[in-house]
Amino acid sequence: MKNKIEKLRIVAFVLVTFFNLHVNAQTKMNPLENQNPIFPKGEKTSADYFTGTAWLNVLVPKDETGKYTIGNVEFEPGCRNNWHTHPAGQILLVIEGKGLYQERGKPARLLNKGDVVVIPSNTEHWHGATKDSHFTHIAITNMTEKGAVNWLKPVTEEEYNNCQTTK
Amino acid sequence: MKNKIEKLRIVAFVLVTFFNLHVNAQTKMNPLENQNPIFPKGEKTSADYFTGTAWLNVLVPKDETGKYTIGNVEFEPGCRNNWHTHPAGQILLVIEGKGLYQERGKPARLLNKGDVVVIPSNTEHWHGATKDSHFTHIAITNMTEKGAVNWLKPVTEEEYNNCQTTK
Repeated sequence: MKNKIEKLRIVAFVLVTFFNLHVNAQTKMNPLENQNPIFPKGEKTSADYFTGTAWLNVLVPKDETGKYTIGNVEFEPGCRNNWHTHPAGQILLVIEGKGLYQERGKPARLLNKGDVVVIPSNTEHWHGATKDSHFTHIAITNMTEKGAVNWLKPVTEEEYNNCQTTK
Repeated sequence: MKNKIEKLRIVAFVLVTFFNLHVNAQTKMNPLENQNPIFPKGEKTSADYFTGTAWLNVLVPKDETGKYTIGNVEFEPGCRNNWHTHPAGQILLVIEGKGLYQERGKPARLLNKGDVVVIPSNTEHWHGATKDSHFTHIAITNMTEKGAVNWLKPVTEEEYNNCQTTK
Protein backbone atom coordinates (compact mmCIF):
# COMPACT_ATOMS: atom_id res chain seq x y z
CA MET A 1 0.00 0.00 0.00
CA LYS A 2 2.78 2.36 1.00
CA ASN A 3 4.55 1.36 -2.20
CA LYS A 4 1.50 2.29 -4.25
CA ILE A 5 1.33 5.75 -2.69
CA GLU A 6 5.04 6.19 -3.32
CA LYS A 7 4.61 5.22 -6.97
CA LEU A 8 1.71 7.59 -7.47
CA ARG A 9 3.72 10.36 -5.80
CA ILE A 10 6.54 9.76 -8.24
CA VAL A 11 4.15 9.75 -11.21
CA ALA A 12 2.64 13.06 -10.04
CA PHE A 13 6.09 14.55 -9.53
CA VAL A 14 7.29 13.45 -12.98
CA LEU A 15 4.15 14.84 -14.61
CA VAL A 16 4.44 18.21 -12.88
CA THR A 17 8.14 18.46 -13.77
CA PHE A 18 7.47 17.48 -17.39
CA PHE A 19 4.68 20.03 -17.66
CA ASN A 20 6.81 22.80 -16.16
CA LEU A 21 9.73 21.99 -18.47
CA HIS A 22 7.36 22.06 -21.43
CA VAL A 23 5.86 25.42 -20.46
CA ASN A 24 9.31 26.86 -19.74
CA ALA A 25 10.63 25.69 -23.11
CA GLN A 26 7.76 27.49 -24.78
CA THR A 27 8.15 30.75 -22.93
CA LYS A 28 11.95 30.74 -23.08
CA MET A 29 11.83 30.26 -26.83
CA ASN A 30 10.84 33.85 -27.46
CA PRO A 31 13.18 36.39 -25.93
CA LEU A 32 16.73 35.46 -26.85
CA GLU A 33 16.54 33.33 -29.95
CA ASN A 34 14.25 33.27 -32.90
CA GLN A 35 13.72 29.53 -33.33
CA ASN A 36 11.16 29.63 -36.08
CA PRO A 37 11.61 32.79 -38.13
CA ILE A 38 9.06 33.71 -40.81
CA PHE A 39 11.74 34.55 -43.38
CA PRO A 40 15.15 32.85 -43.62
CA LYS A 41 17.96 34.85 -42.00
CA GLY A 42 19.86 35.81 -45.14
CA GLU A 43 23.36 37.32 -45.04
CA LYS A 44 25.19 38.95 -42.12
CA THR A 45 25.08 42.73 -42.39
CA SER A 46 28.24 44.84 -42.67
CA ALA A 47 30.10 45.61 -39.44
CA ASP A 48 30.63 49.09 -40.92
CA TYR A 49 26.98 49.95 -40.31
CA PHE A 50 25.94 47.67 -37.42
CA THR A 51 27.07 47.16 -33.81
CA GLY A 52 26.60 43.46 -33.09
CA THR A 53 25.24 40.81 -35.43
CA ALA A 54 22.29 41.23 -37.76
CA TRP A 55 21.15 39.38 -40.88
CA LEU A 56 19.56 40.85 -44.00
CA ASN A 57 17.35 38.85 -46.35
CA VAL A 58 16.53 40.88 -49.45
CA LEU A 59 12.96 39.79 -50.25
CA VAL A 60 12.39 42.07 -53.27
CA PRO A 61 15.53 43.82 -54.58
CA LYS A 62 13.52 46.33 -56.60
CA ASP A 63 9.80 46.65 -57.19
CA GLU A 64 8.62 46.87 -60.84
CA THR A 65 8.03 50.60 -60.38
CA GLY A 66 11.66 50.96 -59.25
CA LYS A 67 10.55 53.01 -56.25
CA TYR A 68 11.41 50.73 -53.33
CA THR A 69 13.20 47.64 -52.05
CA ILE A 70 11.94 45.17 -49.41
CA GLY A 71 14.14 43.34 -46.91
CA ASN A 72 13.85 41.35 -43.69
CA VAL A 73 16.32 42.29 -40.96
CA GLU A 74 16.95 40.13 -37.88
CA PHE A 75 19.00 41.61 -34.99
CA GLU A 76 20.55 39.56 -32.19
CA PRO A 77 19.94 40.97 -28.66
CA GLY A 78 21.86 44.26 -28.18
CA CYS A 79 22.48 44.72 -31.92
CA ARG A 80 21.56 48.01 -33.61
CA ASN A 81 22.42 49.83 -36.80
CA ASN A 82 24.35 53.13 -37.03
CA TRP A 83 22.67 56.48 -37.02
CA HIS A 84 21.44 57.02 -40.60
CA THR A 85 18.97 58.83 -42.86
CA HIS A 86 16.86 57.79 -45.86
CA PRO A 87 16.53 60.34 -48.71
CA ALA A 88 12.91 59.25 -49.34
CA GLY A 89 11.98 57.51 -46.09
CA GLN A 90 11.48 53.93 -44.94
CA ILE A 91 8.74 51.84 -43.32
CA LEU A 92 9.38 49.16 -40.68
CA LEU A 93 6.91 46.35 -39.92
CA VAL A 94 7.86 44.55 -36.69
CA ILE A 95 7.24 40.80 -36.95
CA GLU A 96 9.26 39.28 -34.04
CA GLY A 97 10.84 40.20 -30.71
CA LYS A 98 11.43 43.53 -29.02
CA GLY A 99 13.28 46.48 -30.49
CA LEU A 100 14.02 50.18 -30.26
CA TYR A 101 13.64 53.08 -32.69
CA GLN A 102 15.14 56.45 -31.91
CA GLU A 103 15.20 59.72 -33.82
CA ARG A 104 17.97 62.22 -32.95
CA GLY A 105 16.94 64.34 -29.95
CA LYS A 106 13.87 62.27 -29.09
CA PRO A 107 13.27 59.45 -26.57
CA ALA A 108 13.50 55.93 -28.03
CA ARG A 109 10.31 54.10 -28.90
CA LEU A 110 10.00 50.51 -27.64
CA LEU A 111 8.82 48.25 -30.47
CA ASN A 112 6.86 45.02 -30.26
CA LYS A 113 5.51 42.50 -32.77
CA GLY A 114 2.84 44.20 -34.90
CA ASP A 115 4.24 47.74 -34.57
CA VAL A 116 4.67 49.93 -37.66
CA VAL A 117 7.28 52.70 -37.90
CA VAL A 118 7.01 55.33 -40.63
CA ILE A 119 10.46 56.94 -40.88
CA PRO A 120 10.31 60.34 -42.60
CA SER A 121 12.87 61.29 -45.24
CA ASN A 122 16.15 62.93 -44.13
CA THR A 123 15.54 62.18 -40.45
CA GLU A 124 18.53 60.97 -38.45
CA HIS A 125 17.65 57.76 -36.55
CA TRP A 126 18.66 54.21 -35.66
CA HIS A 127 16.87 50.93 -34.88
CA GLY A 128 17.79 47.62 -33.33
CA ALA A 129 17.05 44.97 -30.71
CA THR A 130 16.67 45.55 -26.97
CA LYS A 131 19.43 44.08 -24.79
CA ASP A 132 17.34 41.08 -23.77
CA SER A 133 15.52 40.12 -26.97
CA HIS A 134 16.12 39.32 -30.61
CA PHE A 135 14.21 41.61 -32.98
CA THR A 136 13.01 41.22 -36.57
CA HIS A 137 11.42 43.77 -38.88
CA ILE A 138 10.51 43.97 -42.53
CA ALA A 139 11.86 47.20 -44.08
CA ILE A 140 10.34 48.86 -47.14
CA THR A 141 12.96 51.39 -48.23
CA ASN A 142 12.26 54.03 -50.84
CA MET A 143 14.95 54.37 -53.51
CA THR A 144 16.08 57.62 -55.10
CA GLU A 145 18.76 58.73 -57.55
CA LYS A 146 20.75 59.68 -54.44
CA GLY A 147 20.48 56.12 -53.09
CA ALA A 148 18.32 54.71 -50.30
CA VAL A 149 20.39 55.31 -47.15
CA ASN A 150 23.13 57.59 -45.81
CA TRP A 151 25.11 55.89 -43.05
CA LEU A 152 26.44 58.00 -40.16
CA LYS A 153 28.21 57.22 -36.85
CA PRO A 154 27.65 54.11 -34.71
CA VAL A 155 25.23 54.33 -31.77
CA THR A 156 27.61 54.37 -28.78
CA GLU A 157 27.18 52.11 -25.74
CA GLU A 158 26.22 55.21 -23.78
CA GLU A 159 23.55 56.28 -26.28
CA TYR A 160 22.21 52.72 -26.44
CA ASN A 161 22.18 52.18 -22.67
CA ASN A 162 20.72 55.58 -21.84
CA CYS A 163 17.91 55.36 -24.37
CA GLN A 164 16.73 52.11 -22.76
CA THR A 165 16.32 53.79 -19.40
CA THR A 166 14.09 56.53 -20.80
CA LYS A 167 11.27 54.13 -21.71
CA MET B 1 -4.93 5.18 3.34
CA LYS B 2 -7.37 4.26 0.54
CA ASN B 3 -8.50 7.89 0.59
CA LYS B 4 -4.92 9.06 0.11
CA ILE B 5 -4.43 6.79 -2.94
CA GLU B 6 -7.72 8.00 -4.35
CA LYS B 7 -6.66 11.63 -3.90
CA LEU B 8 -3.30 11.03 -5.58
CA ARG B 9 -5.04 9.22 -8.43
CA ILE B 10 -7.31 12.24 -8.96
CA VAL B 11 -4.32 14.59 -8.87
CA ALA B 12 -2.49 12.46 -11.47
CA PHE B 13 -5.60 12.29 -13.65
CA VAL B 14 -6.16 16.05 -13.50
CA LEU B 15 -2.48 16.68 -14.35
CA VAL B 16 -2.51 14.32 -17.33
CA THR B 17 -5.76 15.83 -18.63
CA PHE B 18 -4.45 19.36 -18.17
CA PHE B 19 -1.22 18.53 -20.00
CA ASN B 20 -3.06 16.86 -22.88
CA LEU B 21 -5.45 19.79 -23.23
CA HIS B 22 -2.47 22.15 -23.23
CA VAL B 23 -0.61 20.17 -25.92
CA ASN B 24 -3.76 19.82 -28.02
CA ALA B 25 -4.45 23.54 -27.80
CA GLN B 26 -0.92 24.21 -29.06
CA THR B 27 -1.00 21.80 -31.99
CA LYS B 28 -4.54 22.69 -33.00
CA MET B 29 -3.61 26.37 -32.98
CA ASN B 30 -1.97 26.38 -36.38
CA PRO B 31 -4.13 25.09 -39.18
CA LEU B 32 -7.61 26.46 -38.69
CA GLU B 33 -7.35 29.50 -36.49
CA ASN B 34 -4.79 32.21 -36.06
CA GLN B 35 -4.73 32.61 -32.27
CA ASN B 36 -1.79 34.96 -32.00
CA PRO B 37 -1.63 37.08 -35.15
CA ILE B 38 1.28 39.48 -35.69
CA PHE B 39 -1.02 42.34 -36.73
CA PRO B 40 -4.55 42.88 -35.36
CA LYS B 41 -7.28 41.60 -37.69
CA GLY B 42 -8.75 44.96 -38.75
CA GLU B 43 -12.06 45.25 -40.59
CA LYS B 44 -13.99 42.59 -42.51
CA THR B 45 -13.46 42.94 -46.25
CA SER B 46 -16.33 43.61 -48.66
CA ALA B 47 -18.42 40.60 -49.72
CA ASP B 48 -18.42 42.22 -53.18
CA TYR B 49 -14.79 41.24 -53.70
CA PHE B 50 -14.28 38.21 -51.44
CA THR B 51 -15.82 34.72 -51.18
CA GLY B 52 -15.82 33.85 -47.46
CA THR B 53 -14.53 35.99 -44.62
CA ALA B 54 -11.32 38.02 -44.65
CA TRP B 55 -10.07 40.95 -42.58
CA LEU B 56 -8.03 43.93 -43.76
CA ASN B 57 -5.82 45.98 -41.44
CA VAL B 58 -4.47 49.03 -43.27
CA LEU B 59 -0.97 49.41 -41.80
CA VAL B 60 0.14 52.41 -43.89
CA PRO B 61 -2.66 54.10 -45.91
CA LYS B 62 -0.18 55.96 -48.12
CA ASP B 63 3.59 56.14 -48.04
CA GLU B 64 5.16 59.64 -48.00
CA THR B 65 6.09 59.22 -51.69
CA GLY B 66 2.42 58.50 -52.45
CA LYS B 67 3.43 55.45 -54.48
CA TYR B 68 2.01 52.58 -52.41
CA THR B 69 -0.20 51.43 -49.58
CA ILE B 70 0.51 48.61 -47.07
CA GLY B 71 -2.11 46.31 -45.57
CA ASN B 72 -2.37 43.03 -43.68
CA VAL B 73 -5.00 40.59 -44.97
CA GLU B 74 -6.15 37.55 -43.00
CA PHE B 75 -8.31 34.93 -44.78
CA GLU B 76 -10.34 32.25 -43.00
CA PRO B 77 -9.96 28.73 -44.46
CA GLY B 78 -11.55 28.54 -47.95
CA CYS B 79 -11.73 32.32 -48.33
CA ARG B 80 -10.32 33.97 -51.47
CA ASN B 81 -10.64 37.28 -53.25
CA ASN B 82 -12.17 37.80 -56.71
CA TRP B 83 -10.15 37.70 -59.86
CA HIS B 84 -8.53 41.13 -60.16
CA THR B 85 -5.66 43.17 -61.61
CA HIS B 86 -3.38 45.91 -60.26
CA PRO B 87 -2.49 48.77 -62.65
CA ALA B 88 1.04 48.99 -61.18
CA GLY B 89 1.46 45.60 -59.46
CA GLN B 90 1.44 44.32 -55.90
CA ILE B 91 3.77 42.38 -53.59
CA LEU B 92 2.58 39.77 -51.09
CA LEU B 93 4.65 38.68 -48.07
CA VAL B 94 3.18 35.53 -46.50
CA ILE B 95 3.41 35.63 -42.69
CA GLU B 96 0.97 32.92 -41.51
CA GLY B 97 -0.81 29.78 -42.70
CA LYS B 98 -1.23 28.25 -46.13
CA GLY B 99 -2.59 29.98 -49.21
CA LEU B 100 -2.96 29.93 -52.97
CA TYR B 101 -2.03 32.36 -55.72
CA GLN B 102 -3.24 31.83 -59.27
CA GLU B 103 -2.76 33.82 -62.45
CA ARG B 104 -5.33 33.29 -65.24
CA GLY B 105 -4.38 30.26 -67.35
CA LYS B 106 -1.66 29.02 -65.01
CA PRO B 107 -1.61 26.39 -62.23
CA ALA B 108 -2.04 27.76 -58.71
CA ARG B 109 0.99 28.27 -56.53
CA LEU B 110 0.79 26.90 -52.97
CA LEU B 111 2.00 29.53 -50.50
CA ASN B 112 3.58 29.05 -47.09
CA LYS B 113 4.90 31.33 -44.35
CA GLY B 114 7.94 33.21 -45.70
CA ASP B 115 6.90 33.12 -49.38
CA VAL B 116 7.00 36.29 -51.48
CA VAL B 117 4.75 36.87 -54.48
CA VAL B 118 5.57 39.62 -56.98
CA ILE B 119 2.36 40.27 -58.93
CA PRO B 120 3.04 42.05 -62.23
CA SER B 121 0.87 44.96 -63.35
CA ASN B 122 -2.29 44.24 -65.37
CA THR B 123 -2.15 40.50 -64.69
CA GLU B 124 -5.45 38.79 -63.85
CA HIS B 125 -5.11 36.75 -60.65
CA TRP B 126 -6.57 35.87 -57.24
CA HIS B 127 -5.24 34.83 -53.84
CA GLY B 128 -6.65 33.29 -50.70
CA ALA B 129 -6.46 30.55 -48.08
CA THR B 130 -6.43 26.82 -48.73
CA LYS B 131 -9.51 24.89 -47.62
CA ASP B 132 -7.88 23.59 -44.47
CA SER B 133 -5.84 26.56 -43.22
CA HIS B 134 -6.14 30.21 -42.35
CA PHE B 135 -3.78 32.43 -44.36
CA THR B 136 -2.26 35.86 -43.71
CA HIS B 137 -0.19 38.06 -46.00
CA ILE B 138 1.09 41.58 -45.98
CA ALA B 139 0.26 43.36 -49.26
CA ILE B 140 2.25 46.28 -50.67
CA THR B 141 0.05 47.70 -53.40
CA ASN B 142 1.27 50.29 -55.86
CA MET B 143 -1.07 53.22 -56.38
CA THR B 144 -1.71 55.02 -59.67
CA GLU B 145 -3.99 57.75 -60.96
CA LYS B 146 -6.18 54.89 -62.22
CA GLY B 147 -6.41 53.44 -58.71
CA ALA B 148 -4.71 50.40 -57.18
CA VAL B 149 -7.01 47.49 -58.10
CA ASN B 150 -9.61 46.50 -60.71
CA TRP B 151 -12.02 43.92 -59.31
CA LEU B 152 -13.42 41.25 -61.66
CA LYS B 153 -15.60 38.13 -61.19
CA PRO B 154 -15.58 35.84 -58.12
CA VAL B 155 -13.46 32.69 -58.19
CA THR B 156 -16.11 29.96 -58.59
CA GLU B 157 -16.22 26.84 -56.40
CA GLU B 158 -15.14 24.85 -59.46
CA GLU B 159 -12.15 27.11 -60.15
CA TYR B 160 -11.17 27.03 -56.48
CA ASN B 161 -11.58 23.26 -56.07
CA ASN B 162 -9.84 22.37 -59.34
CA CYS B 163 -6.84 24.60 -58.72
CA GLN B 164 -6.18 22.79 -55.43
CA THR B 165 -5.92 19.44 -57.17
CA THR B 166 -3.26 20.66 -59.60
CA LYS B 167 -0.65 21.21 -56.84
